Amino acid sequence: MDAIRLEEKFGLFSEHWRPKVVAAANGQELKLIKVQGEFPWHRHEAADELFLVWKGRFRVEFRDRVVVLGPGELVVVPAGAEHRTAAEEEAEVLCFEPAGVRNTGDVIDTEFTAPNGARI
Amino acid sequence: MDAIRLEEKFGLFSEHWRPKVVAAANGQELKLIKVQGEFPWHRHEAADELFLVWKGRFRVEFRDRVVVLGPGELVVVPAGAEHRTAAEEEAEVLCFEPAGVRNTGDVIDTEFTAPNGARI
Repeated sequence: MDAIRLEEKFGLFSEHWRPKVVAAANGQELKLIKVQGEFPWHRHEAADELFLVWKGRFRVEFRDRVVVLGPGELVVVPAGAEHRTAAEEEAEVLCFEPAGVRNTGDVIDTEFTAPNGARI
Repeated sequence: MDAIRLEEKFGLFSEHWRPKVVAAANGQELKLIKVQGEFPWHRHEAADELFLVWKGRFRVEFRDRVVVLGPGELVVVPAGAEHRTAAEEEAEVLCFEPAGVRNTGDVIDTEFTAPNGARI
């Protein structure tokens, strides 16, 4: 029940594509992610993902459309939808999803698959 | 799978303490709330509530402590914890919680209890 400050939390790490859990509620986790470049195409069979941009510009690509988000803009990726996220320059993004979701979904990628449940 | 812009959505309503659902994911809802003044004390027996401040200053009071939040700051109110929210001046707040949660929890208040599931 303490205040969690996004600015402070984002200042505690620098690596890209490594989600950090900052809060949990109702079996869901709020994760902070720094992104830059392109993430692999993947899907989460059983989990929706809500992305909310905190800083910078962030792209969520589906096979048939691209959603471009700036600060204060969000999108929900429905369970099962193949998608790829990307950012030309570093961006800071919040992700709400069920606890235990693998960041690369159905894909295991030696570069991008991140340890699960890392807290900060 | 469209972009949802918080600035635009907050611009669509003006009343206080009336949550507006802007997105749903995994049985949870993301609600926008404009707040000013003091909300009644209440608890949600079966739901955690995550509050993230978008604009202004927002207070979450527990019986034994007060958490003051500014923009980009959040707190999780655990299920069962009695709490009261408040703001001296108007603030804009995001709330993540399970779909169908009554805003006043175990209390029915003629002024503050809001219709559930209002979307914007």
